[in-house]
Amino acid sequence: MSHLQTKHFIANEIDIDIGRNIVVINEKDARELGLGPNTRVRVIKGDRTRGAFVAITKTMVSPGKILVSRDVARELKIGKDDTVGVKPVPVPPSFTALRKRLHGQRLTQDEMYMWIKDVVEGVYSETEISAFLTSQLYYELSEDELNALIRAMVETGSRIEFEDTVYDEHSIGGVPGNSKVALIAVPTVSAAGLLIPKTSSRAITSPAGTADTMEVLARVDFTPEELKEIARKVRATLAWGGRLNLAPADDIFVNIERKLAIDPWHQMVASILAKKVAMGVDNLVIDIPVGRKAKVKDLKEADQLAGLFIRQAARLGMGIRVAVTYGGQPIGKTAGPALEAKEALETLITRKGSKSLLEKALSIAGLVIELSGKVPPGHGIEVARDLFEKGLSYQKFRQIIEAQGGDPNVKPDDLPIGEHIYTIESPIEGAVTHIDNAAITAIARAAGAPYDKGAGVYLHAKVGYRINKGDPLLTIYSSSSIRLQEALNIASRYSPIIVEGMLIKILP
Amino acid sequence: MSHLQTKHFIANEIDIDIGRNIVVINEKDARELGLGPNTRVRVIKGDRTRGAFVAITKTMVSPGKILVSRDVARELKIGKDDTVGVKPVPVPPSFTALRKRLHGQRLTQDEMYMWIKDVVEGVYSETEISAFLTSQLYYELSEDELNALIRAMVETGSRIEFEDTVYDEHSIGGVPGNSKVALIAVPTVSAAGLLIPKTSSRAITSPAGTADTMEVLARVDFTPEELKEIARKVRATLAWGGRLNLAPADDIFVNIERKLAIDPWHQMVASILAKKVAMGVDNLVIDIPVGRKAKVKDLKEADQLAGLFIRQAARLGMGIRVAVTYGGQPIGKTAGPALEAKEALETLITRKGSKSLLEKALSIAGLVIELSGKVPPGHGIEVARDLFEKGLSYQKFRQIIEAQGGDPNVKPDDLPIGEHIYTIESPIEGAVTHIDNAAITAIARAAGAPYDKGAGVYLHAKVGYRINKGDPLLTIYSSSSIRLQEALNIASRYSPIIVEGMLIKILP
Repeated sequence: MSHLQTKHFIANEIDIDIGRNIVVINEKDARELGLGPNTRVRVIKGDRTRGAFVAITKTMVSPGKILVSRDVARELKIGKDDTVGVKPVPVPPSFTALRKRLHGQRLTQDEMYMWIKDVVEGVYSETEISAFLTSQLYYELSEDELNALIRAMVETGSRIEFEDTVYDEHSIGGVPGNSKVALIAVPTVSAAGLLIPKTSSRAITSPAGTADTMEVLARVDFTPEELKEIARKVRATLAWGGRLNLAPADDIFVNIERKLAIDPWHQMVASILAKKVAMGVDNLVIDIPVGRKAKVKDLKEADQLAGLFIRQAARLGMGIRVAVTYGGQPIGKTAGPALEAKEALETLITRKGSKSLLEKALSIAGLVIELSGKVPPGHGIEVARDLFEKGLSYQKFRQIIEAQGGDPNVKPDDLPIGEHIYTIESPIEGAVTHIDNAAITAIARAAGAPYDKGAGVYLHAKVGYRINKGDPLLTIYSSSSIRLQEALNIASRYSPIIVEGMLIKILP
Repeated sequence: MSHLQTKHFIANEIDIDIGRNIVVINEKDARELGLGPNTRVRVIKGDRTRGAFVAITKTMVSPGKILVSRDVARELKIGKDDTVGVKPVPVPPSFTALRKRLHGQRLTQDEMYMWIKDVVEGVYSETEISAFLTSQLYYELSEDELNALIRAMVETGSRIEFEDTVYDEHSIGGVPGNSKVALIAVPTVSAAGLLIPKTSSRAITSPAGTADTMEVLARVDFTPEELKEIARKVRATLAWGGRLNLAPADDIFVNIERKLAIDPWHQMVASILAKKVAMGVDNLVIDIPVGRKAKVKDLKEADQLAGLFIRQAARLGMGIRVAVTYGGQPIGKTAGPALEAKEALETLITRKGSKSLLEKALSIAGLVIELSGKVPPGHGIEVARDLFEKGLSYQKFRQIIEAQGGDPNVKPDDLPIGEHIYTIESPIEGAVTHIDNAAITAIARAAGAPYDKGAGVYLHAKVGYRINKGDPLLTIYSSSSIRLQEALNIASRYSPIIVEGMLIKILP
C-alpha cells in the first residue's frame, strides 16, 4: 500500500540470537510506522532485502536507530552505523500461495516460487511455514506442485557445477547405524572411476548423520570451491552440505518438521531431490529402508514413495534407481558417530564386517555403478564387491580422508570412544527375535550422540543370533556419567532387544 | 529427563517486546544446559512457571544471569535481581496431543486440557499452535473434542460470577456495520429487566468491534470487580473483554488465525462459548449473518454452524437461541467506530433509524427476552420494540454510558468524525443492486478504522435504493489525508457499490 513508505535508520548488529531475524526498533518509530511486536518488515540495503520481525524497545535504541540480528547483518552486509531502509510488509503477495493451499487449491509454479523465495528471504515466520507443512499431512502436494517446489527450492539457493557426470547415493534414513553405509559405498563408487561428490546432513533425529560420522575422521565443512577441489583431486567427497547454501529452504522446513515431529513424504522427496539438483547430480540411487519402525512401514508404501522419486527424477532429467532395503533392525553393529566410523574403517581395512552393513553398502555402490551403463543391470554388486575385496575401496577412502584434511593412516583403535560404559547382558538363553530401532536411537541419543561423538550403542547380537544367559547384548558408551545413566533409564523403559519373544527388562 | 536439571539465575527484565516470551542467556550457560536459540524452557519462580524461548548472547548478560521479557517478569512477579530457575523442556508431555491430531487421532479430554494449559502457559511457540489450527481445516474437531476444548479454555482462565441469571447475545461477525447492533440490543434487554453484562472484542478484521465503538462514548476497559459493580448498578455492560483473562487461550489462537487468514468453525464456536461460560452466561443468543461474502455463505452452512452451537450449549447447560440474519450488505449506514456510535446514538434518541439496524437489534433483543421465559416464543420482538419506542432503551443506554464513565448527555454531533472526507457519486441513474461487504471493510480499514476512531464509511444508499446520476453513494472519512487517499485507491480497485448491474469504477 502506498502509505507504507520505507523509513531509513542507522543500523547496528545486536548480540542476541533468537533463532529468527529480528529488528529492534524504538517504540516511537514503531508507532509512526504502525508496527506492533512481531510485525513483519523488510530490511533493505542497496538491492538486497531480508525479512525480519519487529521487536519494540523504549530504551535499547533511540528513535532513528535500529538493531538487527546477526543473520540480517550478515546477509545485507551491514557494518557499524550503516543506513538501511525498513518497510512494513503487512501481507506479502506470496501469501496467496499459502491461502490457496489452506483452502484446498493447487499452487501454480509461479505461486510456489514466490512462496519459497519469501520463505528463504525470511519474510515468513514459523507460523505460516508450519501451516504449509501441516497442510501436506492432509492435502498432499500434487506431482505438479512437488515439481514446482523442487525447482523453487533449487532456484532460491546456490548451485555447484562439475565438469564430469555426477553420481550420488542417498538414504531417506530412519534406521540407526545407517550413517556408515556411505563411508563404504562412496569410495567404492569412486574406485570404479565415477565422480561422486557426496554431501550429506548431520543427524536430525538419528544417532548420527553421515557428516557427523565422517567428521570423526576428517573435516567435512567446506566452501564450494574447496569441495570442487577435493572432488577434482580424488573424485569423491564425504562432506557436510550445511554451509553450501544448497536448497536453503530445506533447512527452514526441516527445523519446523522436527519441532512438529512430522515428515511429510512429498516434502522429503523435495528436500532430497532439490539438494541433488543443486549439486548437479546426474544419476542417483535412493535407498528406502523398510521396517515396522522405519519411515516406510511396508513394501506397498515403499512402492508409492519410490514412484514419487522416479517420476520426479524423470521430470528433472535425472537418472535414478531406487533400492528398497531391510530397515527392520539397525545397520551393522553400531550407532553413534565414532562407533560407526570405527566400524566402517574396520570393515574397509579387514575387508570383512557385519553382513547387514557390507551387503547394503556394496548393493548401493553396485546400483550407482550400473547407472553409468558400464555394467549390465544386476552385475553392479559384483564389480563393487571386487573393488572392495581388492582393497581399492579402502585405498580410495584413505585418499578422501587425506583430501579432507584427516589422517589417512588412522586406525580403528585410534578413534576415541566414550569412557563411561555399561553392558547389558541377556538374562536368558535363546535367539534374538527383535531389535527396536526407535529404542536403540533413543538410547544412543540419550547417551549424547550425535553431539558427543564418542557416545552410542554397540550391538553384540543381531536378530537371529543365538545367545547364552549372561552373554552381552548391547554396550552403551558415553563421555558423561550422567548421560550414561540417562541412557540406561531409557533402556529400562523400552525393550531394545527381544530374545525368544521375552521382553528384556533392564533394571540398572 | 533426569539430567535436565533446573539451573538458577539472577533475573532482570529486558526492554524488548518481541511478541513472545523470551529469556536471554549467556552462550556459556546455554552450552552448559544444551540450549540452542529458540529452544523451549520453563522459567520457574516459587510455585509459578512460564514457558519461554531462549535467546543467546555473548555480551548482554554474563553467565549466571538472565534477562526475561516483560510478560514473563509480570507473570512470575520477577523484581530486580530476583533468583529464578530455568529448566529445558525438550518435549512437553502435552505434545502427545498435537502428535495425535497430526496423525489423525482424536484427543481425550485430559489430553486437550494438558495441551491448552501449556498453550496458555507459553510452553508452545506459534509453530505448534499453527499446526493445531491448520489441522482443523482438514480434520475437524469432533463434538467431544470441541467440548473438551471449550472446557479446557474456560478452566485455564478466570471466571466471573454473578448472583442473578446472566443473559447475553453475540454475533459471529464478518459484516461491516455490525458493531453498533449491541449498542441498541443490550440496553433493550436490560430495560426488560434482565441482567446482560456483555463483554466483546475489539475489531480483528472488521472496521469496528463493539468494544471499539462503545469506547467512543465511554470507558470499556475494566477490572472484573469494576465490571461486576457496573452490572450491579445498571444491570448491563458494554465492555471490552480483553483484560478480564476470560479463556486466554483464545487471544493466542485468534492472533495466529489472523496471520494465517483462517477461521476454523469449531475453533470459533470454542472461542465464543468458552468466553461466555467464563462470564457465567446462562442464556445466549447467537447471531449468524449469512451472505456471499460473510463467514457463512448460505442457509445450509448456517444450519450446520447453528447445530454446533446448539449441541455444545446443551452440553454446557446453557440456554441458547440462534438467529440467522441477512449478512449480504452492511448493517445500517455506517462502518467505523465513531460513525457507528453516532448512528446507534441517533437511532436510540430519535427512535427511528435504518431498518437493517433496527430490525436486527430488536429481533436479537427479543430473542434474548424470550429466553427468560417471560414472553412466549415469537413475541420477544414486540416487547423489545415497545421498550425501544418508549425511549426505555435509550434511557438504559444513558445509564450504561454514565456507569462506564462517559457523558450520558452526549449528542450524535458531539462525536468527532475524521475531517478528511471524500464522497463518491453515482455516474448513472438506477437502483443499487449490490454492496460488497469486503470492499466496504477494506475501504474503512484503509481509511484508518478501527484505530483511527473517526475513520470509516457512510453509505448514502443501500441495496434497492433508487438513485439519480450525481447522487452521493458513499462518503469516506479519515483523520489522515494519506489514509483517505489510500482508501480511495482501494475503492477504485474494488467495486463497493453496484448500480443496476453496472460496476462503478471510481477514479479519484
